[in-house]
Amino acid sequence: MGLSGEVAIIGAGAIKFGENFTQSYFDMVEEAARTALADAGIEPERVEAAWLGTCYAYDYTTEGNAGTSLAEPLGLYGIPISRVANYCATGMDAVRNAALAIAAGEYDVALVVGAEKMRDVEPRGSLVAQHVERGHPVYAKGRTAPGQFALLATRYFEVYGNAREEMALVAVKNHANGALNPRAHFQKPVTVEQVLNAPEVAAPLGLLDCCPTTDGAAAVVLARTSVAKQITDRYAVIRGISLAVTSGYFNAQFDPTWGFTGFASTQKAAAAAYKQAGITDPRREIDVAEVHDCFTITELLNYEDLGFCGPGEARRLIREGVTQLGGDLPVNTSGGLKACGHPIGASGVRMVVDIVDQLWGRAGKRQVAGARTGLAHTLGGPGAVASVAVISA
Amino acid sequence: MGLSGEVAIIGAGAIKFGENFTQSYFDMVEEAARTALADAGIEPERVEAAWLGTCYAYDYTTEGNAGTSLAEPLGLYGIPISRVANYCATGMDAVRNAALAIAAGEYDVALVVGAEKMRDVEPRGSLVAQHVERGHPVYAKGRTAPGQFALLATRYFEVYGNAREEMALVAVKNHANGALNPRAHFQKPVTVEQVLNAPEVAAPLGLLDCCPTTDGAAAVVLARTSVAKQITDRYAVIRGISLAVTSGYFNAQFDPTWGFTGFASTQKAAAAAYKQAGITDPRREIDVAEVHDCFTITELLNYEDLGFCGPGEARRLIREGVTQLGGDLPVNTSGGLKACGHPIGASGVRMVVDIVDQLWGRAGKRQVAGARTGLAHTLGGPGAVASVAVISA
Repeated sequence: MGLSGEVAIIGAGAIKFGENFTQSYFDMVEEAARTALADAGIEPERVEAAWLGTCYAYDYTTEGNAGTSLAEPLGLYGIPISRVANYCATGMDAVRNAALAIAAGEYDVALVVGAEKMRDVEPRGSLVAQHVERGHPVYAKGRTAPGQFALLATRYFEVYGNAREEMALVAVKNHANGALNPRAHFQKPVTVEQVLNAPEVAAPLGLLDCCPTTDGAAAVVLARTSVAKQITDRYAVIRGISLAVTSGYFNAQFDPTWGFTGFASTQKAAAAAYKQAGITDPRREIDVAEVHDCFTITELLNYEDLGFCGPGEARRLIREGVTQLGGDLPVNTSGGLKACGHPIGASGVRMVVDIVDQLWGRAGKRQVAGARTGLAHTLGGPGAVASVAVISA
Repeated sequence: MGLSGEVAIIGAGAIKFGENFTQSYFDMVEEAARTALADAGIEPERVEAAWLGTCYAYDYTTEGNAGTSLAEPLGLYGIPISRVANYCATGMDAVRNAALAIAAGEYDVALVVGAEKMRDVEPRGSLVAQHVERGHPVYAKGRTAPGQFALLATRYFEVYGNAREEMALVAVKNHANGALNPRAHFQKPVTVEQVLNAPEVAAPLGLLDCCPTTDGAAAVVLARTSVAKQITDRYAVIRGISLAVTSGYFNAQFDPTWGFTGFASTQKAAAAAYKQAGITDPRREIDVAEVHDCFTITELLNYEDLGFCGPGEARRLIREGVTQLGGDLPVNTSGGLKACGHPIGASGVRMVVDIVDQLWGRAGKRQVAGARTGLAHTLGGPGAVASVAVISA
């Protein structure tokens, strides 16, 4: 049976995302974990195994490189704690590995924490600057994330027409949602005009088309579904959780057949998760989604890659308001990476937390009425790594 | 049932360990993976999921930070590939996560590769120097691995009597075994006198009491046991594989009750693996073992922590020749970390490969006659992370 329903979520929590100079990495991990454990109504001693998702240990902090970075802040000693890193899909892959372990019958209850401390960087410079200094083959050529995703935008424009305004609508929607989310990094709305007139980062991407760098941590408590039912009446079931690694746009083996207007990784991860979950029509069967909007163009591509609409139809989807609060399939009701920020190892776990909040009817002003099935999606690194989870109340 | 026998190893391979300036990280990963796949007699397309163990991505190379670093050298696209990092237990934890996924029923065949490229360091300096530069709280105080493990040696001497010569006997044994192993970094024997007279690193540890830094990669192919039987007649069953994270010797929560003469992590990991495997008397039931001899003192402590002898009896065990080739329980017939070297993410996988070679009767001059059950053990970071596997033919 594996990942098709055997694993449930019984607790979820996240800290306030943002520029966090008052908490260490350990403080963030501890607060997220304790929030999720309290939400599950269990003591830390009940946790039989744990997974930590942090992508760039040592680049930002000396913590996060091993399971000890989760054990120490919680005093959670003596159990197995793995650390997973997989570009921006790190958090979701930590959830996936934990879910596999529970599905294996090896543990009844597991804790997953995703965390990344990105703002507290010493004068040595940014992540990109560090990697350039160390001879990174891609960053050293100036091919940073905005520069790469900009190419996808221009290609998309070429194939399907200019989507500059629709990209702005993504930013407007996600900032509006973030303004309703007390955990978001940015909690103020922006207008189409502000997005279009923001300083250019890599044409056609402006500053407000890009997610910020952020400190954050999020956690979920998993249990075998049969055990979850004994612990609580309030649980959500992981109906599917997948990971797909493909060649990225940096790579000589890059496959141009998909036309540079989407990501094969997302398409494959979605197909795998939908198969596990028995989803045949995601547009109808998914009630709410958190997707990887590292840049506004990415959210549009995700709509198509995830099957929320057909190729070239993303512009129409955002224009018609389908993905806004009150629409038929609200996307990034949390504010997404755009407003929550993107602490790399935390984001995937944070998405699962936000979906759980929706399924449990506690999303406040962002609540999607009657949400029963949610989707979370992260896309990593050079577009080569994607993970999709389908979760139902 | 979980990890108690549901998962089998159907292929195993490793590259020559050493100072490897002729292969890139990708070259090493590819050679190890292709060797293991050829050993299993399957094509790469048969692999449904994979796990990569590399501990220090970016410190040594720009590769190894995500599943893409395993996908790209093999062209193994479209499947899930996770990356695991957990100090020196990285490789074993990659095997463990893969085994859990197979036990979950999610995949029939999985590939695990452990790799670390450590010798090809730019003039910016060693791992320790880099971490000091970045403000590492422990290394910055000069508390390097030799300095820390030296304290365990002096404490052990205080409690159980001077073991300096027995430490030398560990080096002599492991170098003698390495001399028979064409994959070992060091393939020459050393004498007790050479060990005792080697330059001092951190008293009482001399140069020949320390494992070297090494380039290396190793791989295993796992399959559900029921599937393994369909593919091949020659497989080994993982009867148990565990991970335990405890407080390490760097930590304020360090538990002194175990007396600084062993590692609680190893003890807990061993207890968990023995329970999974149904091992009640490891001294009798284990035929051959690969244990984490990062320093000679560590191998002595491991004997006691793994239950090969009682507390304080390790000196007698090595003196009586029990753990040498031809003894009752040969340990580190590969040469161990001492002679093979210790490419961090690779070591745990390499140990499993060496145990499989013994169980399949292909260990050459190092063969332990009639070996039916083997143990692999890694100890990570500040002594806080340990993993133990029990494997039977």
